[in-house]
Amino acid sequence: MIYLTGFHAIEERIKSGKPCGPLLVAKPGPRARTLTVLASENKIRIDRVGTIELDHIAPDHRGLALEVDESGLGVETSLEEFLESLGKNSDKKDVLVVILDEITDPHNYGAILRSCDQFGVDLVISRRLRTAKHADVVTKTSAGASSWVCQAETANLPRAVEKLKEAGFWIYGADMKGEDVYSRDLRGKTAIILGSEGTGISRLLLESCDAVIGIPSLGRISSLNVSVAAGILFYEVMRQRKS
Amino acid sequence: MIYLTGFHAIEERIKSGKPCGPLLVAKPGPRARTLTVLASENKIRIDRVGTIELDHIAPDHRGLALEVDESGLGVETSLEEFLESLGKNSDKKDVLVVILDEITDPHNYGAILRSCDQFGVDLVISRRLRTAKHADVVTKTSAGASSWVCQAETANLPRAVEKLKEAGFWIYGADMKGEDVYSRDLRGKTAIILGSEGTGISRLLLESCDAVIGIPSLGRISSLNVSVAAGILFYEVMRQRKS
Repeated sequence: MIYLTGFHAIEERIKSGKPCGPLLVAKPGPRARTLTVLASENKIRIDRVGTIELDHIAPDHRGLALEVDESGLGVETSLEEFLESLGKNSDKKDVLVVILDEITDPHNYGAILRSCDQFGVDLVISRRLRTAKHADVVTKTSAGASSWVCQAETANLPRAVEKLKEAGFWIYGADMKGEDVYSRDLRGKTAIILGSEGTGISRLLLESCDAVIGIPSLGRISSLNVSVAAGILFYEVMRQRKS
Repeated sequence: MIYLTGFHAIEERIKSGKPCGPLLVAKPGPRARTLTVLASENKIRIDRVGTIELDHIAPDHRGLALEVDESGLGVETSLEEFLESLGKNSDKKDVLVVILDEITDPHNYGAILRSCDQFGVDLVISRRLRTAKHADVVTKTSAGASSWVCQAETANLPRAVEKLKEAGFWIYGADMKGEDVYSRDLRGKTAIILGSEGTGISRLLLESCDAVIGIPSLGRISSLNVSVAAGILFYEVMRQRKS
């Protein structure tokens, strides 16, 4: 069991219609009132609890918390299911899949999910979904986007890349030393691999890329925060597809 | 006096050639060795201190800390000086100024400075520079970029906007409900105003904008982290100028 404490995260989770609850309320207030109304409209049980009790269950609460079965977080799917549903939907020409290679910081993970939602990323693949102890940070940093973004977990990322290639995807690795991202045509079926801030993309995955794309730097530090870099790459894909 | 503790921040500060020191070293290690060599090359005094002493001075240290005179942080200038130097440099056609309206979270401030460095922002204007107690968070989150990026402080942002207009700048407010950023020509002298995540740009400043630009959303949450949004806007300006 984990407990969501961010107002935004709680709201999005309830709206997503996925199983959750009860909503534990310790302190009244305008936000608490809005959320209890929303919860009762969605037939979610509301429990009044003491502040001390809530401090114990969810130490970073701001007056209320939503109980969530950990396994129900995010829209979980498998790559196979995703590719199958894609095969049935021949109208969808532009598809964007994001592969996260060892992005373990829950703040970065959450911020990337938020950008995935913003730019309509179709699937996020990672080696393992965030662990229970981080799930609340991810949900909060993502401002609720983790309730919406389709995610798949796999033990074998290189194998997932192979499957994407077989399904007609172009695979791009993101690296500051790569080609200017705007010089590449990113329409169609595109997958982007993002590595961790410290070590980048692992060698095996990098070798499987069709090309390496980067964001040109005019600066002296020449490294962006990984979640900012991710947002820019997703933006560029969207820009090319819309214009 | 403040103490920088991030390795990256310390390194960039020493390399910037601006006054700093002594470097306080409590624990040996490869990073400490690199930085002491760098410090001695730059004639910065190195003091060995006890871990307990350093815990006291800079609680979040990782074995060493660099003493910095607070007023020496960042490349500080005034808008007047900046515009004067611009007037003397007629070769420079593309100029990007960023105005931060009440972005007080030091993590966001630092991340925005990092993107400013990356995309060659010429000047950052804010109502007040980060306060001493946050300076180290800003420096660390910016990965050292706060040593490089030119910053000006002003008590009166609307007056600064007027001065920029007089100097031939186009003023853009950033807001999710604005025009698609890529549909605007952002070459030439451009200033972008960024507001805080919660409340956006203050009304008075918003009214002084020539146009409001935004990043189109395909998502359900429709709000980006302000530092991600800033990175995308600066990227778009650079993309238009380079291509």
